[in-house]
Amino acid sequence: MILLDGKQTAAEIKDELALEVEKIKKNKGKIPHLAAVIVGNFGPSLTYVNSKVKACERVGFNSTLIDLPEDITEEQLLHELALLNKDAEIDGYIVQLPLPEHIDEQKVLMAVDPDKDVDGFHPTNVGKMTLDLPSFLSATPYGIMELLKRYKIETSGKNVVVIGRSHIVGRPISILLSQKRDFGNATVTLVHSRTKNIKEITQKADIIVVALGVAEFLTGDMVREGVTIIDVGITRLKDATRKRGYRLAGDVHFESVSKKAAYITPVPGGVGPMTIAMLLKNTLSANKKLNS
Amino acid sequence: MILLDGKQTAAEIKDELALEVEKIKKNKGKIPHLAAVIVGNFGPSLTYVNSKVKACERVGFNSTLIDLPEDITEEQLLHELALLNKDAEIDGYIVQLPLPEHIDEQKVLMAVDPDKDVDGFHPTNVGKMTLDLPSFLSATPYGIMELLKRYKIETSGKNVVVIGRSHIVGRPISILLSQKRDFGNATVTLVHSRTKNIKEITQKADIIVVALGVAEFLTGDMVREGVTIIDVGITRLKDATRKRGYRLAGDVHFESVSKKAAYITPVPGGVGPMTIAMLLKNTLSANKKLNS
Repeated sequence: MILLDGKQTAAEIKDELALEVEKIKKNKGKIPHLAAVIVGNFGPSLTYVNSKVKACERVGFNSTLIDLPEDITEEQLLHELALLNKDAEIDGYIVQLPLPEHIDEQKVLMAVDPDKDVDGFHPTNVGKMTLDLPSFLSATPYGIMELLKRYKIETSGKNVVVIGRSHIVGRPISILLSQKRDFGNATVTLVHSRTKNIKEITQKADIIVVALGVAEFLTGDMVREGVTIIDVGITRLKDATRKRGYRLAGDVHFESVSKKAAYITPVPGGVGPMTIAMLLKNTLSANKKLNS
Repeated sequence: MILLDGKQTAAEIKDELALEVEKIKKNKGKIPHLAAVIVGNFGPSLTYVNSKVKACERVGFNSTLIDLPEDITEEQLLHELALLNKDAEIDGYIVQLPLPEHIDEQKVLMAVDPDKDVDGFHPTNVGKMTLDLPSFLSATPYGIMELLKRYKIETSGKNVVVIGRSHIVGRPISILLSQKRDFGNATVTLVHSRTKNIKEITQKADIIVVALGVAEFLTGDMVREGVTIIDVGITRLKDATRKRGYRLAGDVHFESVSKKAAYITPVPGGVGPMTIAMLLKNTLSANKKLNS
């Protein structure tokens, strides 16, 4: 069994990005610049945003944190985005979710200029992805593709099962893996809460991507020997034996599944660390106007 | 075995649309108006466009045929579309494909205002569909959904196999059938040219949508008793026994598959007639600004 080390892979990607920045500096080009908009401070949002901003600094990007008050009106927020859309210094930006309840999230995501939408959440980018046109891929599915690719895991003609049909993970990864790309070409089955015979389906899979948000859902009896497992879930489970009182669990029952898997992502340290690296990669693409 | 009669169902939909037009007239509202742009005259394109225009007339819509010369420049064509985008009288319009080789098809499709894109080909509409937001669904997948719905064929929890991953049929129908909609919720497997074990997969399917463009690809030995079959293909096969020298064949070997199927679309008279009806339905939605 080989661990798909997202932490190590993300570090390699960041090193590559830092090299790109060096080249840009040498040629006196424009340094990539990511802005992050946060409204209020919901749970771990500020921590997430700060880690994104810090990651920018480490690879040599410029970054701007736009910290807006929780009681900002929707109109004011849309005005802030209009300014970012016009600002030539900002290559790409993200709006940290969730937003306060009085703001229409979909309306806000629609207001981001698709050419600066490095989160890949705008319908135009989702549509381009679906149509296999150049676009910003959202960070988690992009990170999964990159991890599989760098570990040279064959996907063409393989039976892939994606568990969970969320807009930000399950749906896009099911599309990407089945496309006629240089990497992809898999036969993908998308299973979800209404699927009746999940175990029968997962037992035939060469690769399983689990993005359900149910701790330890996939167990050893559901998979065959030699399977590749991508675990997107991360949940805190109470654990009195730990100092901090909990442990982190993925959507995969690691102990039983890892015994049969050829490749498996750990949680934490698998898909998670890849996401920030891919956000940075998107920012570089925005800087180079690759998807405009 | 029950035939899924697309011709009859399309006629019912057109009757419903004609009633809607009557209501609009009674309330002195704006009559739906579809424009169709055709450049040059490639093969059957003019026939297709004319049938769309005629269908408009039959349900009481207004229609405009914009017939442009084959040597029009890309710039001039884009200018024509800009006029249509601005024209408040035109609710929706289509650009008949294919376009002459000197014109970038993707650029043209991107120039259609997504709110008037009744073909549903613009990335913004494709993205909205993928994200399960209100959008114009393109006519063929929309027609398949409507046909299944009107014949009350249960899709929730069913195993669906879609054969073919084209942008205009296979991909969108695979997405729509697996979504958490009032109709959908199926477990969908998308198979294609790189799939290694197609027969093993199709034999387990409750519903099969074949959109490969290979005449009589799906044969009786590939399906189980009681399956529902949607055949999107239409190919001319040479047939010396026919007066006109050919016969029309679908992607399904009708003789062997229909013996096992519970429901099956004929070719012709199945999915084909539904597409124009759905284009008209989209034009009515554009008129009512349901997807703006």
